[in-house]
Amino acid sequence: MSTDTNADADADAESTSNCGASSGESTSEASTESSSSCGASSSSDDSSGSKCGASSSNSSSSSSCGASSSDDDSSNEKEVGSTVDDFDAEPGKLSAVGLGPGHPEGMTDRAKTALLEAEHIVGYTTYIDLIPDEITEEADELYDTPMCGEVSRTEEAIDRALAGNDVAIVGSGDPNVYALGGLALEILESKGATASMVDFEAVPGVPAAQSCAARLGAPLVNDTVSISLSDHLVPMPEIESRLHSAAKESFTITIYNPWSRKRRENFEKACEILLAHRDEDTPVGIVHGAGREDEQVLITELGELEELGEDEIIDMTTTIVVGNEDTYVWDDRMVTPRGYETKYDY
Amino acid sequence: MSTDTNADADADAESTSNCGASSGESTSEASTESSSSCGASSSSDDSSGSKCGASSSNSSSSSSCGASSSDDDSSNEKEVGSTVDDFDAEPGKLSAVGLGPGHPEGMTDRAKTALLEAEHIVGYTTYIDLIPDEITEEADELYDTPMCGEVSRTEEAIDRALAGNDVAIVGSGDPNVYALGGLALEILESKGATASMVDFEAVPGVPAAQSCAARLGAPLVNDTVSISLSDHLVPMPEIESRLHSAAKESFTITIYNPWSRKRRENFEKACEILLAHRDEDTPVGIVHGAGREDEQVLITELGELEELGEDEIIDMTTTIVVGNEDTYVWDDRMVTPRGYETKYDY
Repeated sequence: MSTDTNADADADAESTSNCGASSGESTSEASTESSSSCGASSSSDDSSGSKCGASSSNSSSSSSCGASSSDDDSSNEKEVGSTVDDFDAEPGKLSAVGLGPGHPEGMTDRAKTALLEAEHIVGYTTYIDLIPDEITEEADELYDTPMCGEVSRTEEAIDRALAGNDVAIVGSGDPNVYALGGLALEILESKGATASMVDFEAVPGVPAAQSCAARLGAPLVNDTVSISLSDHLVPMPEIESRLHSAAKESFTITIYNPWSRKRRENFEKACEILLAHRDEDTPVGIVHGAGREDEQVLITELGELEELGEDEIIDMTTTIVVGNEDTYVWDDRMVTPRGYETKYDY
Repeated sequence: MSTDTNADADADAESTSNCGASSGESTSEASTESSSSCGASSSSDDSSGSKCGASSSNSSSSSSCGASSSDDDSSNEKEVGSTVDDFDAEPGKLSAVGLGPGHPEGMTDRAKTALLEAEHIVGYTTYIDLIPDEITEEADELYDTPMCGEVSRTEEAIDRALAGNDVAIVGSGDPNVYALGGLALEILESKGATASMVDFEAVPGVPAAQSCAARLGAPLVNDTVSISLSDHLVPMPEIESRLHSAAKESFTITIYNPWSRKRRENFEKACEILLAHRDEDTPVGIVHGAGREDEQVLITELGELEELGEDEIIDMTTTIVVGNEDTYVWDDRMVTPRGYETKYDY
């Protein structure tokens, strides 16, 4: 199992990085902020046949990066590698498992059981590394990729399930939060398979919004919005429109994927939009690496947020929680009242 | 420990029911949809001194409903019962623990550890009943109330912590989702205490939005909003404004506390607002009692939602997930695409 030397490089956490993506979003940045060693980087050669460094343990076959024949960086189009007709076996089970914030105690029992029952566990290297050894040791195969994108990895997981293996594909947080769930179902359909065929199950986990909110105190509490600033798949004008709508109302707002070197302007724009509707002194919580050794937690004000974009605390993996007009800071914690204080004198 | 005979009556899940609340919202309905046996119901006598049926196990002292002297139904105002000056002991630890969807396998290890470490466990009866025996048997005291509201119960938990006990107060889902977190911090402050004094910790859990989404397939996936239709603490015009803002944008929307007999019009209004912005055939998922024996899951269309308000599947404890314009139903599952289908041909 490869070791991810950069503990912060779990940019695939609820992000949309992908090998072979167009040059507008560099996958290398999403992971290591240096030039990619993956053959699919937009700046390297155009050889087909991935050399993405996918590793497979406890297996007699060698794995390459996804079942599709190439992560061709010169094109945005990928053909699905294989369809349900290419398999003879009775399909195995496919589970999309949310690991939560990324330490073993943050996993649910149900997630652990799903992983123990899986014959193959598939995921981004950083997440595979987070799973306790006593679980990974029970799997027949681990398939992890450091760089290659969700699409090829998810397709690989599905192919393995269609080939008859019980497969768990993992991600941080929850499979329904900027994550595996929708992608897995879409790819199943494209292969001519069905979710029922692989007894597809989404195993929920604690999303980053709630893991990070817990580190900040009680900042969410009432009606709330999650917005991702990654415009890899969603156009920025649409993101801006959502930010305006959310900021105008008294939602607390959780921002995912707030910043990358190539998308600073998205972050700057978001700060501008928030300030157009909320006071400068609105409390904002910033959590980087929640629950991990390199965790950083900061409570600041909306007026200070933009310049923190250049601070190490804010990168693709950071979660930012923006308070509403009732949120206040007390005893180093962000508190958004339920509303009881207007009814009860305590 | 009292037994809650109505398995569906966990209306306190992320709701704002409260003994002694004004007659506009009957606590009895929130729990059993029948007249309340709690002395604090708005239709019964005005005796002070609660007879709410709070039970305390393994304790030599008898517990009444909250440390405050009364849950006086004739008034909306409650005085905080005791302040930090009333206690001599070194305060114990206070944890607000999210139990997740309500079955033991849905709990995180961290939640279980927090409960095992607590000397006192406090919560709504239905939730205390959900905790495995091997955990509750380790506690010195369990304090559960079937009817009394969050405020008095949370206050009781805080008083016990200030008195020197390590206390865990529990709720379903996550403490930052229409739940305990903010309330606990507010009450601590009102008592002249600090969060640091009780080493306050919020232990996250899987929120209902994600537990229910997992049962529906992959309906959330991208930017999403949670809105509660309970107007006990938030005025309905504000809720309506939020619904409009969310429905206009392409957020997926999770609706909490959608319906009660006394607030049918809130639900009807919400359906009207959603239909003003989204097509009638927009997929909508309805989950009642996620993961429990009485679980009901239904995928329908927005145009059908309002009349389902009269169906048993929709009550205060139901979670409703509204798709956006890209959401579709496939193989009995709600799927909201990530956006990859516009970039990758699979």
